[in-house]
Amino acid sequence: MHAPETPIREIGERALVQLLRSRIPEGPGVVAGVGDDAAAVETSPLTLVTTDSLVEGVHFRRDWSPPRLLGRKALTVNLSDIAAMAGLPRYATVSLCLPPDTAFGFLDGLYDGLLERGAETGVHVVGGNLAASPGGIVIDVALLGQGDRVLRRSGAQPGDLVVVTGTLGAAAEGLRLLAQGARLGSEGQLEDTGMWTASSAAALSRCLRAQLDPVPPLAFARTLSENNVVHAAIDLSDGLSADLLRICEASGLAARVDAAAVPVDPLAAGLERARGGDALALALHGGEDYELLLAVAPDRFDALRDLAVIWDLPLTVVGEFVAGEPRVLLTTGAGTEPLPPLAHEHFGAPGLPAVPEA
Amino acid sequence: MHAPETPIREIGERALVQLLRSRIPEGPGVVAGVGDDAAAVETSPLTLVTTDSLVEGVHFRRDWSPPRLLGRKALTVNLSDIAAMAGLPRYATVSLCLPPDTAFGFLDGLYDGLLERGAETGVHVVGGNLAASPGGIVIDVALLGQGDRVLRRSGAQPGDLVVVTGTLGAAAEGLRLLAQGARLGSEGQLEDTGMWTASSAAALSRCLRAQLDPVPPLAFARTLSENNVVHAAIDLSDGLSADLLRICEASGLAARVDAAAVPVDPLAAGLERARGGDALALALHGGEDYELLLAVAPDRFDALRDLAVIWDLPLTVVGEFVAGEPRVLLTTGAGTEPLPPLAHEHFGAPGLPAVPEA
Repeated sequence: MHAPETPIREIGERALVQLLRSRIPEGPGVVAGVGDDAAAVETSPLTLVTTDSLVEGVHFRRDWSPPRLLGRKALTVNLSDIAAMAGLPRYATVSLCLPPDTAFGFLDGLYDGLLERGAETGVHVVGGNLAASPGGIVIDVALLGQGDRVLRRSGAQPGDLVVVTGTLGAAAEGLRLLAQGARLGSEGQLEDTGMWTASSAAALSRCLRAQLDPVPPLAFARTLSENNVVHAAIDLSDGLSADLLRICEASGLAARVDAAAVPVDPLAAGLERARGGDALALALHGGEDYELLLAVAPDRFDALRDLAVIWDLPLTVVGEFVAGEPRVLLTTGAGTEPLPPLAHEHFGAPGLPAVPEA
Repeated sequence: MHAPETPIREIGERALVQLLRSRIPEGPGVVAGVGDDAAAVETSPLTLVTTDSLVEGVHFRRDWSPPRLLGRKALTVNLSDIAAMAGLPRYATVSLCLPPDTAFGFLDGLYDGLLERGAETGVHVVGGNLAASPGGIVIDVALLGQGDRVLRRSGAQPGDLVVVTGTLGAAAEGLRLLAQGARLGSEGQLEDTGMWTASSAAALSRCLRAQLDPVPPLAFARTLSENNVVHAAIDLSDGLSADLLRICEASGLAARVDAAAVPVDPLAAGLERARGGDALALALHGGEDYELLLAVAPDRFDALRDLAVIWDLPLTVVGEFVAGEPRVLLTTGAGTEPLPPLAHEHFGAPGLPAVPEA
């Protein structure tokens, strides 16, 4: 085995590929796994496909994210997309671009997280690619899932409820805490950076984990394929304001949101309040919650909530879809105003996510 | 429409995504294409999956490759992997990491090439991702194919013939020509850089196209799933020496190659001879030929060659597989020696492909 600090340049592509391959288990449905020109996998008549990448300096920083958690998140952001289609995730390919000076321990830890998260969710890594990067690290995962019913963004109906799973804002608060110096260790434990007390530890830990190791409601999402309760779905990756607008655009509807109903994460809200910040803004625009945003037939919401209880998953009605030009309206104590899609742009300016300062 | 020189930063992610989506046609089998959390596609019981990336400064240079040809090649390198499994390519996802100063014309041209090559080969783009890159451009394609029989690297038998499609060495010669200043235009035409005469134009054009716009034998590859003539296959991406060793390792066999039989591309050989170079070395180690290397039952080779004639595809027997430790032996006029896998490392040192000088 190589020392964790060994630059991968010294190990070489061939040895690295063999090393990674030897770690990847065979899985059910995998007829030909890693190590051939392509993988061959058993599929159902309808297959879901998604791809999402994590780019160093845009989506993560090596000094902010232990490699194991980064590996978990690289898979999770794709799992979330399959969940939003009510699919069962099955097979992943992993394409890595790595600077030649990347430490072997980073790659090894990244694969720890990828394979662990795969084992948790029934996903098998069936292929990959390893390339040198003249810039930073790029982790590109493509995920195949099994689909039954296709749950699209475009199916919302006027009168449908706008429903959110879980709580919002913790991941964005976690990003702020990272920028301030808070850190998680590779097992997800809060590191002692002198930033917290016994009373704030739980809140810091929750927010950092929400940012570094999000957990989308995968099991609940699967049940959405089995009935016609949910008319449309999207995963909350860019924030409620931006992702709800996407459903509106795809469905040709407007949506009204009641600010008082938005399920702001209570621990994140506590931290924000303590600094005089705006917890609602985090929940509306912060992004990276990897919860689900659903359009639900109003007479079926109670049944859906009964179902979510099985997974201890809160469901919250935050508003409703209404006929009208695609836009989102927010009602607060001050009245009703259009809610612009202020998607949180990590490290950067609006538009294409920009490049961070080093 | 935006001017080609507009930096994509000024257009913004949202507008870019909409612009690219609007260019992507629906296709047969595509139940939900681009524009949702994941694509939903119709699949057969056995699906092939592969992923391969092109990294700026490692696999391509923007000043060497017109964007349209780069888009074509990004799909082609994946098509070649599906071909080596005797599969039918069907659906692709395209994940792009782009520096914010990338010109819109580059992205537009890249998609011209991707979609054009997809249309030629029956491949539909069903999803993608767009991220900022603090470094160079990374183009990551994942390709799904339909499989029937799974043609693996591991099935070669002692006595099988080592068979190569097409000719070898032109792509590597093309890379050398690019380094010397030769260029193709975006329609694949030879540009007038003062490097060629009427008599050398055909050879330059052939080699530059082989490097920038390779054409794997996809139609022929599909026929390999229909019978048991071919026992093992791999695509020639890293050169005969390295890729043949991979079949040997997977099949637990050695292979003997007759140097005199290797189908060195005649136009590349002419250019190499003119400069006093070694055309055989290009064919053995140059890589990026994207031809197929096959293990063929000896009594079925004639039938296979008759089949290849339909596609005007030369098949050449270059040696045979024999019992023994996995290695490749090369017989020349000077005797028989082990042939090391000197895979051509673009721009770099052995091991992990290194980073080029700017």
